[in-house]
Amino acid sequence: MTSLFQSHSLRIFFFLFIFSQFIKAQDQASSKSSGLILTEEGLKKIKDNLGQVPLFDRSLQEIKDEVDIEINNGIEVPIPKDLAGGYTHERHKKNYSTAQKAGVLFNILGEEKYANYIKKMLLEYAAMYPKLPLHPEERSYARGKIFWQSLNDSNWLVSMSQAYSSIYNWISKEERATLENNLFKPFADFLSVESPQFFNRIHNHSTWGNAAVGMIGLVMNDEELVDLALYGLKEDNIDETARDNDGGLIKQKGQAAGFLANMEEAFSPSGYYTEGPYYQRYALYPFMLFAKALQNKKPELKIFEYKDGILVKSVYALINLTDADGEFFPLNDAQKGMSYFNNSVIMSVDAAYYYGEHNPMLLSIAKKQGEVTLDDAGLAVALGLKNKEEQEFLKESIILTDGSKGNKGGVAILHSKEDKSRYSLVMKYTSQGDSHGHYDKLSYSFYNDGEEVIQDYGFARFVNIEQKNGGGYLKENTSWAKQSIAHNTIIQNETSHFNGDFDTGTKFHSEKYFSDFSKPDVQIISAKENNAYPGTQMHRTMALINSDIFQKPVMIDIFRVTGAKENQYDLPFYYFGQIIETNFEYNSPEKLEKLGSKNGYQHLWKEAAGISSANNSKFTWSNNNKFYTLTNVTKEGDSLIMARLGASDPQFNLRRDPVYIWRKHKAKDAVFVSVLEPHGSYNPITELGNNSFSQIKEAKILIDNDEYTAVELIGFNKTKLLLVIANKNGEGRHSLRINNNEISWKGNYTIIEN
Amino acid sequence: MTSLFQSHSLRIFFFLFIFSQFIKAQDQASSKSSGLILTEEGLKKIKDNLGQVPLFDRSLQEIKDEVDIEINNGIEVPIPKDLAGGYTHERHKKNYSTAQKAGVLFNILGEEKYANYIKKMLLEYAAMYPKLPLHPEERSYARGKIFWQSLNDSNWLVSMSQAYSSIYNWISKEERATLENNLFKPFADFLSVESPQFFNRIHNHSTWGNAAVGMIGLVMNDEELVDLALYGLKEDNIDETARDNDGGLIKQKGQAAGFLANMEEAFSPSGYYTEGPYYQRYALYPFMLFAKALQNKKPELKIFEYKDGILVKSVYALINLTDADGEFFPLNDAQKGMSYFNNSVIMSVDAAYYYGEHNPMLLSIAKKQGEVTLDDAGLAVALGLKNKEEQEFLKESIILTDGSKGNKGGVAILHSKEDKSRYSLVMKYTSQGDSHGHYDKLSYSFYNDGEEVIQDYGFARFVNIEQKNGGGYLKENTSWAKQSIAHNTIIQNETSHFNGDFDTGTKFHSEKYFSDFSKPDVQIISAKENNAYPGTQMHRTMALINSDIFQKPVMIDIFRVTGAKENQYDLPFYYFGQIIETNFEYNSPEKLEKLGSKNGYQHLWKEAAGISSANNSKFTWSNNNKFYTLTNVTKEGDSLIMARLGASDPQFNLRRDPVYIWRKHKAKDAVFVSVLEPHGSYNPITELGNNSFSQIKEAKILIDNDEYTAVELIGFNKTKLLLVIANKNGEGRHSLRINNNEISWKGNYTIIEN
Repeated sequence: MTSLFQSHSLRIFFFLFIFSQFIKAQDQASSKSSGLILTEEGLKKIKDNLGQVPLFDRSLQEIKDEVDIEINNGIEVPIPKDLAGGYTHERHKKNYSTAQKAGVLFNILGEEKYANYIKKMLLEYAAMYPKLPLHPEERSYARGKIFWQSLNDSNWLVSMSQAYSSIYNWISKEERATLENNLFKPFADFLSVESPQFFNRIHNHSTWGNAAVGMIGLVMNDEELVDLALYGLKEDNIDETARDNDGGLIKQKGQAAGFLANMEEAFSPSGYYTEGPYYQRYALYPFMLFAKALQNKKPELKIFEYKDGILVKSVYALINLTDADGEFFPLNDAQKGMSYFNNSVIMSVDAAYYYGEHNPMLLSIAKKQGEVTLDDAGLAVALGLKNKEEQEFLKESIILTDGSKGNKGGVAILHSKEDKSRYSLVMKYTSQGDSHGHYDKLSYSFYNDGEEVIQDYGFARFVNIEQKNGGGYLKENTSWAKQSIAHNTIIQNETSHFNGDFDTGTKFHSEKYFSDFSKPDVQIISAKENNAYPGTQMHRTMALINSDIFQKPVMIDIFRVTGAKENQYDLPFYYFGQIIETNFEYNSPEKLEKLGSKNGYQHLWKEAAGISSANNSKFTWSNNNKFYTLTNVTKEGDSLIMARLGASDPQFNLRRDPVYIWRKHKAKDAVFVSVLEPHGSYNPITELGNNSFSQIKEAKILIDNDEYTAVELIGFNKTKLLLVIANKNGEGRHSLRINNNEISWKGNYTIIEN
Repeated sequence: MTSLFQSHSLRIFFFLFIFSQFIKAQDQASSKSSGLILTEEGLKKIKDNLGQVPLFDRSLQEIKDEVDIEINNGIEVPIPKDLAGGYTHERHKKNYSTAQKAGVLFNILGEEKYANYIKKMLLEYAAMYPKLPLHPEERSYARGKIFWQSLNDSNWLVSMSQAYSSIYNWISKEERATLENNLFKPFADFLSVESPQFFNRIHNHSTWGNAAVGMIGLVMNDEELVDLALYGLKEDNIDETARDNDGGLIKQKGQAAGFLANMEEAFSPSGYYTEGPYYQRYALYPFMLFAKALQNKKPELKIFEYKDGILVKSVYALINLTDADGEFFPLNDAQKGMSYFNNSVIMSVDAAYYYGEHNPMLLSIAKKQGEVTLDDAGLAVALGLKNKEEQEFLKESIILTDGSKGNKGGVAILHSKEDKSRYSLVMKYTSQGDSHGHYDKLSYSFYNDGEEVIQDYGFARFVNIEQKNGGGYLKENTSWAKQSIAHNTIIQNETSHFNGDFDTGTKFHSEKYFSDFSKPDVQIISAKENNAYPGTQMHRTMALINSDIFQKPVMIDIFRVTGAKENQYDLPFYYFGQIIETNFEYNSPEKLEKLGSKNGYQHLWKEAAGISSANNSKFTWSNNNKFYTLTNVTKEGDSLIMARLGASDPQFNLRRDPVYIWRKHKAKDAVFVSVLEPHGSYNPITELGNNSFSQIKEAKILIDNDEYTAVELIGFNKTKLLLVIANKNGEGRHSLRINNNEISWKGNYTIIEN
């Protein structure tokens, strides 16, 4: 630490020296910002504070180091050829990213080498662009010119608009004309009027396209482009059946388009983005950046107040959708490991602080991020941190509604703490989630701090790894990751929810039945899904409970299904780690066969299977030196299957993750009651384990009918816990005779420990 | 950190207050140490320094907290019943551990509550012991009374000897008589004269037994017991064919026994312990502790000078056998995660510092351990750290010889650095390693800092997890973990080395051919094995090389086999992670079958297989956001098999680890040339990858005959690297025509880059 700090101090000193040398030159050159992101006023404040605000100075130094290396390497603008991960793709990405940063450095430091770098690069693009055909790679529904898809071309224009803005006043009128006529105007036209299927959707792609066109419009003072960006194309002639590469519908008939329509439609009033947090993080970038530009150039729009301040709300929602390490819950299509350390979220947190209410909880996130944007917002955050104003960001149990009006289900995130550990349950009862949605009604994942205990698979894709389909979606994303069997929810007759049909899935959403986070020892959520399987009603209630029976909080899961006819029902548990013990017999085959032939089942190898005889089937495993036991209230004849991912996977695209599946073979109605119990620990250095056994002596269903479900847990310490759910009309008063006791309560559930 | 420090300061203050209150009481009570571990002189120095040496004070406080909790819980001495992990087993372990610590606290702090606690506990044992039969669990070749095996009874006596020593002068003569007649003397007799098959071996079990008997002998001034401990039983009548539970021979005819013989036989002159580091760590405890007691009570023995100071040397060997995180390389039977943070190593490092040459490099290890023993040695270490005398422990490439005379092969540990990363190759060409040895001649493992890149499986056992066979060895340890196919070496005709026969394996060892660690860019080891398969010679040369071709150091592996007849040869690579790409076609079956029927092959599922056509077969994978490529110089018709562990494993006792196997179907002589190339990285937050491709354009075998093997690597950057090995008579001068160039050199190998 010491040497880093010393070296850092030296660099700041050096940097201030440089700065003082150029401040005069800068004032002479007419390098006034055109104010797209960096306002005149903001720039002045930044200059006044230079060298005095540690986080800002460090962020500036990091970017300066990065850009200086690139400037030394020289400019390369190759003819587009490659997919993601390939040379030309990565080079053009690096170009726009460096140019944007160089623009910031020019504005703040005034060194002309940065402006020259941008000018030279843009002129090279301007020389190349008019002759460019569509990118040779043909796989996208909306091909780009610089990149294989217009999405990446939009990324380019969002950054280059900022770079151009930075040098707008510094270059000559003639140079501006060259850049605008040969590059920016045709570029914006290509992304908008020439690509309606890309530009005129409610989709993160379009948000990028809208922002790109709008931002360059703001720089060029081209009101027509800005209007296109805000309100979409008036005419688009999009075929009503057209699909994108993910199978998503391009546009519903009569749907609005443009940036404002995307803000309106894509976010729920809670700030949840219907595609899920991984794409929310991605989409937030153009939403926030264009909003910042609009705030500067068109303050009359009051963009940060739009939809009751939805952009700022969405930042809070996004932070709540992270685990203890700041990684996003991988709902819908999502690459694991993506977190609030991503640049897009750094920028969004700074903006939410600055354009919102200067909430000191956001400062603690920014502190962890360790970086700020080099503008008014970033400076405000860095100043807040310098003044030690930060407060811990408290993640309380929360409901995030889905749907533009907040009426299409949602996500519940429940937390329960014990000592220093936090157990989190993420239950999903949303709408489909557009083309990135999975068939995962009433599914959940469970976390022990930053560790996945019961996982959501995420997507089947290696972003930017060229060898894996050019970094694009793999076919296993459709055949596996989106299927219901890939999720911790009930699958009927080995078919996915909505029969895996996107259009059907898009018509429906699950409904919250009730939730209660008011009691410290009980966090509970209950939701229903009546459309995933026609004729079948699904009702799942999940609770995190602290009880004297247990050392740590446990999850109780009551999943009722009511069928119109006899069905097979599967409930998988995607655990991690090593099986320690079961209380039932099972057979391991001599050859491994696939668990099924389609709907994702073809990807699972059946490693072992047993038939339940006891009333409680127990499954204990260990992961990362912790123990977990799943106690399932089984009926005689239920199957218990150990399976593993990896079948029908000729390219080894899937992780070899294990799953434990509870199957009811022929049942019309059924109730799956499970208790997930974290317990004990193991120390590989002392080699001592503690509490490697479940604390549940028995779990019983005392009542289960249309009116009520009552579950009793009996601990080895003789403590008893009774949980009763009113399955319908829950809000009123209830009374019920259980175990020869009359109990009565008001509301959807009651819990009694004795 | 601040609050921890503050709280710690408060506690130290409190503790010094307590200490001042009791120092007088202590001087009044005749609580003089009998000097088994804590000498009078040492105790005085400790008291003089109390409150002034942070690490010592902290260690004392931690132990005080732990013991105080136990004293409050009260004493329990249950009738023995359970296996490891079970209640009575864990209770008795806790008892001896707490009693030993209480003794130290009594001697240092003088509080009689600690002495009383020990006395009361020992009297309870003395009341129980005379009536105790053998432990009811019958599975051990040497059953204990308190525990299921005499080994644990010895652990008990080693600790209780210290506890007894601490209160020896404090209790009455009558109490001493009761304890010695009813408990300690019969206990020592049981472990020695009544258990010759346990006591009279060259084995870590016997070392524990010897130390236990010797230490209680020293406390009781019983010279006869001390002699038994040092020199073994004169008569033992051990059946020459008798075996322990691991199948190890109890005793070779005419073999010496006792503590000194174990010191003589178990360690090589380099300090390597033949069973491997996991058991070295375990055995070091009684070796070191008894040696400390002997040094105090019988300084004339000069035990720390015995065998040229072997005990201190063994500590250096052990530290060299750890990865970047301090975890032991899992050679032979070993549980992964065991590290130099184990108590046994903390004690040994302190002793090696104090009884050795006060090497400041040991202080840096002690600093990481964060704990010292509460005696003269620990105080010396804590004082050294207080005075900031520590130096970094430099792990250089090293050879550790095996065999009591250092003439039975060895282990080579090669290191190569790049930036902040260290790549380490651990190559094993030892003798069998007693009953904990594996059939793994010329095997290796490869590390990227603390991460396993090519792993050694370790053992099949969950120490102290009761559900897994009472924490004992699982049958898969024999059927899988010991077998040759579980290791990264050549397997002929799907049989293990020495046909998996322990007696045969014990007769032989591999031989080092040459090594050279003198050049910074080339670390090289070459060894031969001529007995694993009668009629077949195996010769493996492995090098870590820094070359301009590569971003990072690579491993070159030249494995020659010369058979008497045509054989099938398999060379496995136990990688971790996700397959990214191969350059050959392969088929994935519709059902998974076992790779073979015995010798460990029955535990592997065959996930895919391809036939090599190119000269180079490439296999690229990714793990923990890093990339690796294996380039194998294959011949047409070689098979490349992707398999996974887990078949024939009805209790899920094995990890589902993957393996890539290179198979030559019918070959008399063969050479397996491989390059393992770490490259590139991936950032899941920026989603940017770099260098995800191998840098090797081609790897070629230019020459391969009995005299020479020449391998050439050609990089995409056109750099060429030539490595030539003189396969016999290597020391002299050589000249050779390669690619129309005459090259000449002196010694076993030459390497040329151009």
